[in-house]
Amino acid sequence: MEKVKEKPDFAYMRIAKVMEQQILNGTLRTGDKLPSLRTICREYGVSQNTALTAYYNLESKFLIETRPQSGYYVRYSKTKIPSLPQITNPGANAEYTDSESMIRKVYDSLGEDGHLPLALGSPANELLPIAKLNKGLVTATRELKGSGVAYDKTEGNERLRRQIARWSFAMECDLNPDEIITTSGCLNAVSLCLMALTEKGDTIAMESPISFGMLQLAQTLGLKVLELPSDPRSGVDLNALADALKKRKIKACLFISNFSNPLGSCMPDENKRQAVGLLAKYDIPLIENDLNGDVYFSQKRPKSCKTYDESGLVLWCGSVSKTLAPGYRVGWVAPGKFKEEVRRIKRYHNISSTSITQEVIAGFLETGRYERHLRKLRHTLHGNLLKFSRAIADHFPEGTMASRPQGGFVIWVELPGPIDTYDLYEKCLRYKIGFAPGRIFTLQNQYKNCLRLNYGLLWNEKLEQDLKLLGGLARRALK
Amino acid sequence: MEKVKEKPDFAYMRIAKVMEQQILNGTLRTGDKLPSLRTICREYGVSQNTALTAYYNLESKFLIETRPQSGYYVRYSKTKIPSLPQITNPGANAEYTDSESMIRKVYDSLGEDGHLPLALGSPANELLPIAKLNKGLVTATRELKGSGVAYDKTEGNERLRRQIARWSFAMECDLNPDEIITTSGCLNAVSLCLMALTEKGDTIAMESPISFGMLQLAQTLGLKVLELPSDPRSGVDLNALADALKKRKIKACLFISNFSNPLGSCMPDENKRQAVGLLAKYDIPLIENDLNGDVYFSQKRPKSCKTYDESGLVLWCGSVSKTLAPGYRVGWVAPGKFKEEVRRIKRYHNISSTSITQEVIAGFLETGRYERHLRKLRHTLHGNLLKFSRAIADHFPEGTMASRPQGGFVIWVELPGPIDTYDLYEKCLRYKIGFAPGRIFTLQNQYKNCLRLNYGLLWNEKLEQDLKLLGGLARRALK
Repeated sequence: MEKVKEKPDFAYMRIAKVMEQQILNGTLRTGDKLPSLRTICREYGVSQNTALTAYYNLESKFLIETRPQSGYYVRYSKTKIPSLPQITNPGANAEYTDSESMIRKVYDSLGEDGHLPLALGSPANELLPIAKLNKGLVTATRELKGSGVAYDKTEGNERLRRQIARWSFAMECDLNPDEIITTSGCLNAVSLCLMALTEKGDTIAMESPISFGMLQLAQTLGLKVLELPSDPRSGVDLNALADALKKRKIKACLFISNFSNPLGSCMPDENKRQAVGLLAKYDIPLIENDLNGDVYFSQKRPKSCKTYDESGLVLWCGSVSKTLAPGYRVGWVAPGKFKEEVRRIKRYHNISSTSITQEVIAGFLETGRYERHLRKLRHTLHGNLLKFSRAIADHFPEGTMASRPQGGFVIWVELPGPIDTYDLYEKCLRYKIGFAPGRIFTLQNQYKNCLRLNYGLLWNEKLEQDLKLLGGLARRALK
Repeated sequence: MEKVKEKPDFAYMRIAKVMEQQILNGTLRTGDKLPSLRTICREYGVSQNTALTAYYNLESKFLIETRPQSGYYVRYSKTKIPSLPQITNPGANAEYTDSESMIRKVYDSLGEDGHLPLALGSPANELLPIAKLNKGLVTATRELKGSGVAYDKTEGNERLRRQIARWSFAMECDLNPDEIITTSGCLNAVSLCLMALTEKGDTIAMESPISFGMLQLAQTLGLKVLELPSDPRSGVDLNALADALKKRKIKACLFISNFSNPLGSCMPDENKRQAVGLLAKYDIPLIENDLNGDVYFSQKRPKSCKTYDESGLVLWCGSVSKTLAPGYRVGWVAPGKFKEEVRRIKRYHNISSTSITQEVIAGFLETGRYERHLRKLRHTLHGNLLKFSRAIADHFPEGTMASRPQGGFVIWVELPGPIDTYDLYEKCLRYKIGFAPGRIFTLQNQYKNCLRLNYGLLWNEKLEQDLKLLGGLARRALK
């Protein structure tokens, strides 16, 4: 085991050293909460400043981290961080292979009893504020004219649109309510945008790997998908994007800008600005799927591409499906200059969205309950991520790589060596463990050695054991 | 005024004569409730049999009618029945003109205060069981696992699908729950079916005039619409259908089989059987929009085309949007042999429908509350229809024709002579009276002298005055 190098000349060093040893020998484990500054002061008889300096020291080594309004936590242990996967290198075809049967198999097993839902595409029920939402429903029947029995306007609940507009300030994007159309969830928003912008045979560009829901949607609309190389930290590769725009006729782009699915990457602000500028140059619309932006682990919400949109080419899509209530089917889109077209398509296909659930979400946003819930959710998810990372380092095959999302609830895992994770998936089913095999996140024949795990679950002993079992099965499969 | 011919030889004749006179001179007006048999017995000192015979006599002259569980009502007065419009004669083009701006104008004005919603496409809130639905919501949060916060299955709420299957017995159609997929309302069901069955450039056949929602949907999907002549009583003309199938390549048909919108026609059972047989011969699927089938005014629910479907070619669509709760967005489809395709399309575009509202509707069907509500609704709507017919006869220009729907909540009115009802519509707006101009129910340049009225409103003095005003404005416009 690596030895700590600083001499404990100062009080802060003494404290830092003890903790570092505990982290390195596993007494303190990734995701564990550290004593508060006050406790440190009391226990070690030091000033608050000394305690703070000790924690700064540990933070600078990436051993611990602060979480807003929560305190200090053990981050990755030095020896235990799975390496980051390389930037992806998808095939250059805009054609597609069919992964429908695979996807169906993975998702049909999800409802089964006792089945560990690591394949889930949304946080587990246990992390959602169900009782408060139920109260919200009763309030909504009282406050909404006609109790939500009548058709809503096509553009959606006014109170909700006002709240979404207000909320958009968090990403320095001052939308007004009239620019927003509510939808039946985020995928539905993307569906409306694609129907408004594209025709059968058109090519759209997405990052790769990418949410299979969006791939399937593109396929069913008869679109060709150009998959772009993506970095597990910073998302879509801008050089590759620039190159593609030069060489091909691309009708629209579709990116998950913040905490992408499945990579967990987040486009840095500068990349967002550049991407928007580049697309404006070619007059190509960007459908920005920002459904995870509110689930950030750092100090503040990342911006969106919409923040930099001057030409009205960005169609910003969001929802509360990943944070509050997937089954409410409440999402939205700010379609920029395509608003009329998107509104028409919504009316033609759906008339309007469910009235009452929109009102409940409006209330949640208005009263601050959403923000309070998010604080808790972020905290839980961040802790879970660290625990998952540790479990992967501890139990998965030597050389396994994993992404390090700064938000969201999925982690991308790359197993070393040749293995087909769909075969592994089928083996794991016998143990009631599921996950999303890498191949379903592309239309190319790729990512066979990858898998996506959902860490938006309730962490417990059983979950840890199951991850260990999964790691063991992967080890065996690799041999 | 016409004189009554029978001599009052018998007690029943005496009674019948008095009532007939009262009906003919307007003392008793269309839609008025008649005394119960018991009251007749007491007042006239006759046996129940005599009272019954008197009512039979009046019924045979179409002066009165019985309504199940409710009693006897004045039907049309002899001199006051608007004639039936002729069978329609739509143009043979499968092209389209754009009525988007007209439709938008008509429907944007609907929300305005004090605006008479004769243009509405669903029954007014006052006719819907809002308090009971609100109770149902609270129950649903208790009974549904996860309170409806989690994603529902793509195929939809199991309890609801079981209830729809059970309900299908009323039309002698023994569906099983596995054959049903829930949707976000009936138009969404039709949208999923069209996306599953057709491609841009295909031609689909519909009756004419037809709901503009379905026309717009077809347009936005790039489909050509062949409009078929339709009879205001029996719906789509089967000879025209047979002829079209012989001459053209039709990808699918789309009919509102029961109480069509806007004509109010109902395909007789024999026509349904024949239409299904004919389409089976050509292997052409039929999307059957049966959203009004439960709102019948006769003794029992009309059958559906699905009842006669042996080849799995009928995709039967329905909803509770016209009977219970438009804003809940709960509908369904039994797509026959296209089930997998429709399910896939639903998943790709929507993932699933709103969970909680499906559960509420399931409860309504299961507990018999739906049937109780429907009895009341049918009764109200039937009474309203008779009152509307009388008002049209009384106040609209001489020679105005109107359909005589046996169910549903819309009536089709044909004004005599050259007039553009869209111009009339714009004039009426000043008086806060709206209706749906005939031109929006076709893609041809037709039905200019027609309009659709919604009688699913709360009948009162004001409504009657407004209909009178509308009739007066139509008279003036015709001069």
